[in-house]
Amino acid sequence: MRVSRFPLNTVKETPTDAEIVSHQLMLRAGLIRRIAAGIYTWMPLGLRVLRKVEAVVREEMNRIGCLELLMPAVQPAELWQESTRWDAYGPELLRLKDRHERDFVFGPTHEEVVTDLVRREIKSYRQLPLAYYQIQTKFRDEVRPRFGVMRAREFIMKDAYSFHADQPCLQKTYDDMYRAYSAIFTRLGLDFRAVLADTGSIGGAHSHEFHVLADSGEDDIAFSTVSDYAANVELAEAVTPATRPAATAALAKRATPGVHTMDDLARFLGVGLEQTLKTLLVQGSNGGLVALCLRGDHTLNEIKAEKHPLIAQPLTFASPQAIRALVGCEAGSIGPLGLACPVLIDRAAAVLADFACGANADGFHFTGVNWGRDLAEAAVTDLRKVVAGDPSPDGHGSLRIARGIEVGHIFQLGTKYSAAMNATVLDEAGRTQVMTMGCYGIGVSRIVAAAIEQNHDERGIAWPQAMAPFQVALLPINAGKSPEVREAAEALYAELQAAGIEVLLDDRDARPGVMFADMELVGIPHRIVIGSKGLAAGELEYKGRRDAESRPVRRDGLLDFLRERIAG
Amino acid sequence: MRVSRFPLNTVKETPTDAEIVSHQLMLRAGLIRRIAAGIYTWMPLGLRVLRKVEAVVREEMNRIGCLELLMPAVQPAELWQESTRWDAYGPELLRLKDRHERDFVFGPTHEEVVTDLVRREIKSYRQLPLAYYQIQTKFRDEVRPRFGVMRAREFIMKDAYSFHADQPCLQKTYDDMYRAYSAIFTRLGLDFRAVLADTGSIGGAHSHEFHVLADSGEDDIAFSTVSDYAANVELAEAVTPATRPAATAALAKRATPGVHTMDDLARFLGVGLEQTLKTLLVQGSNGGLVALCLRGDHTLNEIKAEKHPLIAQPLTFASPQAIRALVGCEAGSIGPLGLACPVLIDRAAAVLADFACGANADGFHFTGVNWGRDLAEAAVTDLRKVVAGDPSPDGHGSLRIARGIEVGHIFQLGTKYSAAMNATVLDEAGRTQVMTMGCYGIGVSRIVAAAIEQNHDERGIAWPQAMAPFQVALLPINAGKSPEVREAAEALYAELQAAGIEVLLDDRDARPGVMFADMELVGIPHRIVIGSKGLAAGELEYKGRRDAESRPVRRDGLLDFLRERIAG
Repeated sequence: MRVSRFPLNTVKETPTDAEIVSHQLMLRAGLIRRIAAGIYTWMPLGLRVLRKVEAVVREEMNRIGCLELLMPAVQPAELWQESTRWDAYGPELLRLKDRHERDFVFGPTHEEVVTDLVRREIKSYRQLPLAYYQIQTKFRDEVRPRFGVMRAREFIMKDAYSFHADQPCLQKTYDDMYRAYSAIFTRLGLDFRAVLADTGSIGGAHSHEFHVLADSGEDDIAFSTVSDYAANVELAEAVTPATRPAATAALAKRATPGVHTMDDLARFLGVGLEQTLKTLLVQGSNGGLVALCLRGDHTLNEIKAEKHPLIAQPLTFASPQAIRALVGCEAGSIGPLGLACPVLIDRAAAVLADFACGANADGFHFTGVNWGRDLAEAAVTDLRKVVAGDPSPDGHGSLRIARGIEVGHIFQLGTKYSAAMNATVLDEAGRTQVMTMGCYGIGVSRIVAAAIEQNHDERGIAWPQAMAPFQVALLPINAGKSPEVREAAEALYAELQAAGIEVLLDDRDARPGVMFADMELVGIPHRIVIGSKGLAAGELEYKGRRDAESRPVRRDGLLDFLRERIAG
Repeated sequence: MRVSRFPLNTVKETPTDAEIVSHQLMLRAGLIRRIAAGIYTWMPLGLRVLRKVEAVVREEMNRIGCLELLMPAVQPAELWQESTRWDAYGPELLRLKDRHERDFVFGPTHEEVVTDLVRREIKSYRQLPLAYYQIQTKFRDEVRPRFGVMRAREFIMKDAYSFHADQPCLQKTYDDMYRAYSAIFTRLGLDFRAVLADTGSIGGAHSHEFHVLADSGEDDIAFSTVSDYAANVELAEAVTPATRPAATAALAKRATPGVHTMDDLARFLGVGLEQTLKTLLVQGSNGGLVALCLRGDHTLNEIKAEKHPLIAQPLTFASPQAIRALVGCEAGSIGPLGLACPVLIDRAAAVLADFACGANADGFHFTGVNWGRDLAEAAVTDLRKVVAGDPSPDGHGSLRIARGIEVGHIFQLGTKYSAAMNATVLDEAGRTQVMTMGCYGIGVSRIVAAAIEQNHDERGIAWPQAMAPFQVALLPINAGKSPEVREAAEALYAELQAAGIEVLLDDRDARPGVMFADMELVGIPHRIVIGSKGLAAGELEYKGRRDAESRPVRRDGLLDFLRERIAG
């Protein structure tokens, strides 16, 4: 393509309303233009990137036998009423009425439509499993659309749905999807993690999120430094790092005037926070309070706590009045010794020895406390948020914590929709049986933004090879004044095109600085500069988008040179 | 692809609610499924056809330098208010409100969005011309959606928009589009005509419709038997076939009791209808009535009549009372002799001699009437609908008339949108100038239905090669009982796939009749049957979808044989 026929819509100024770098760069590089809040036009350059993502997604879906179809964007409300989502889905669901005042929605997902389709088409377990996908424009009426296409209202999604006669069959398709998703993000050149999003009770994982790691991500991801293990920080299991040392100190009750927090206590005693124990009181599931003990430097993971059978849902902390009524002191002086309620101890707190904790009296703490000696051993459970350096729960390596952008989600739905909508098949014995379902989403347009968050520098975007709108930028210098340069550029352009390389020839005869800046901003991975001086010596100038410096390459061997670079 | 992994959703019964054959066959062949009135899911087989159409459209758009982008489906009402279409567009415009009660539309076309985009991006005439296209889901809230995807509410369209500094530049892009459209429909293997949809006053054609010829079409198309000339019957110019013969008969007033129509008159006189002249009275543009004279066998073209400056818009026929007040007789006895109002004569009526017409008195007609001798020559104009056999207006061949399905439309918009929305550039002299626009649509999903209307028989669809979901169907007979057949089928399947041929292997081990019926219903162009008897002799059985009989082909040369067939 030539820039004269494929105009770049680059902009110098950073748009003031764009908060994150991908949004800024997508606007500056002319990939998108805003039409309304959360609604964008994909410009030709941006669409080329989007199509590359779509093509990879499509190939990997086809590879696992998932069948592409195309369901309508506009869906009748009846189906949503049948699934009960018409009431359950909030104002993010864009509802509309047709000219006959019938209710419809602009689909944010298609569980209802696909379940309706399959219940009509499929009659026998022999026709299962069956998996459909589509790549389609969706609408979700976000209350605060922001970050460009990262959290847009209209967006492009790959959504897939699978139907099964039983759970093992669902698990197999789920595993296929897991591998396909991993292949997609790997092929796109993204640093990603498949994150455990929920641990199910019926054996095996029910949900994984796929996150692109980037500082601007909205989720905290914990992942092993050496293995595939990854989980949302909220869900990551905190593994006990060691066994409990032997007690060496004597129990002592100390007056601690002015000490109200764990930080105060550590400072007062001159010990590390990790030698202190904090005790939190929460509502128990059968009326009274429950004490939760954690190491002073650790943070309660409320999601884990809430799942404990002794603890009431939703998690509710005891009021100062309730604490005083039960313990007779302020929150900062609670400790497990002699506490008149059930006690749960976090795994890391359970291996402490000689620790300090509240003495259940204002202005007093114990030091040299030891489980088993000074107070009874209590129930040990996983209560805390993992921190960087914790052992990975799978036993391989330790955890790192980073921010992630969710770009994919696979989910075992079970019979949520098929039961509500009566989607059944006849089983081997001729009995009616509700189908089991899975659903699998990829935020196709969001991937483009996530890739930029992960791949950019101060000069612009640095696309992973597989997502670049063009592979090679050809920049002739002063072509207007030099017929040799112009002819060499044209010849090279023709040669690269004939070789199937996607090349963008900058035939604007612009100043070199303008061309360099544009090509770096839009992020083309390989740049070839054609100057008359180099040409005379049979040389061109090459620079990879991430290279610090350009270097001379021979005109003769250029095609092979570029092929090697592109192959990566 | 294997049928075991790519299930066919064929249905034996003809759906009762499908009125036209393409709708019936699309449902029966499992190409689409209905979700709501005018809203369909494209099943995997149908989507394959749709994507083939899209790919051809895309290639031809790219070839003429039209740039693909993707505008949002949901558009803010403000833009539609600016263009005034918010009020002008009827209930076919699907209007909706977001969660903040702001007005939006689900776009039926994108003139406003693209004009808004271009007015922001483009500042100078030097950046013109510029042409964008997209292939996108649209919504038009038809009052009575019907005929399946032929007249659906949600549909897929290729819409393109071009921007220019002047009319000659628009004309050039328009001509490019005309050629690209012709190339698209030719490549798709459709019998189509580019139909003149309007003749402009500012030189040259402003609008062409592209029609696929099919009996179920909603438009009557007149086209030359030898040249490219084609027009809507309403717009086709009726050319005078001959010059006027000399008068030979004497004028006579005849009593014609019981004669009220032209048919009555011809029968009464024992002459052909083409020797009679009928006179219609319509409202004139300045208050009185105007008489229109046509040959008895011709039909008034109301659209042509309405455009005449002497005739009032909209065309209004005189009431019996008004006729009697002016002429003193019933409508069937009007004639041009002595008529007290302006007279317009159709070209064909003007070359009559010795004709019969009303005598402006109930029960009386004249015979042997001749212009110039018995009454004054009057203004001659084109008033009638063309009929089959008329000379083609371009001077080449004669006209045929057939029904057409509109699948494309190219249109010179001029400044309708750019003026309303203030889309300007600076011209060479630095003056602000409103851009000139064109728009160009193709009904991508409608093409699929139109192709079936044109290509089917009693057994099902007979796809043009370029639109077929698969090129070759491989049908092994009794594969379950014959390992030789199964192995031969697998080997052939692998060979054809390796050769890049899209092949569907029916591995269901179904009865031959079921396989044959399915493959003919879904319309796969080439069928290979593998039977154990033929195999033993090194032979397979080939049948083209439109062939009456199958014939043996050698297994050895099969690939070449199929390649030749596919190449057409």
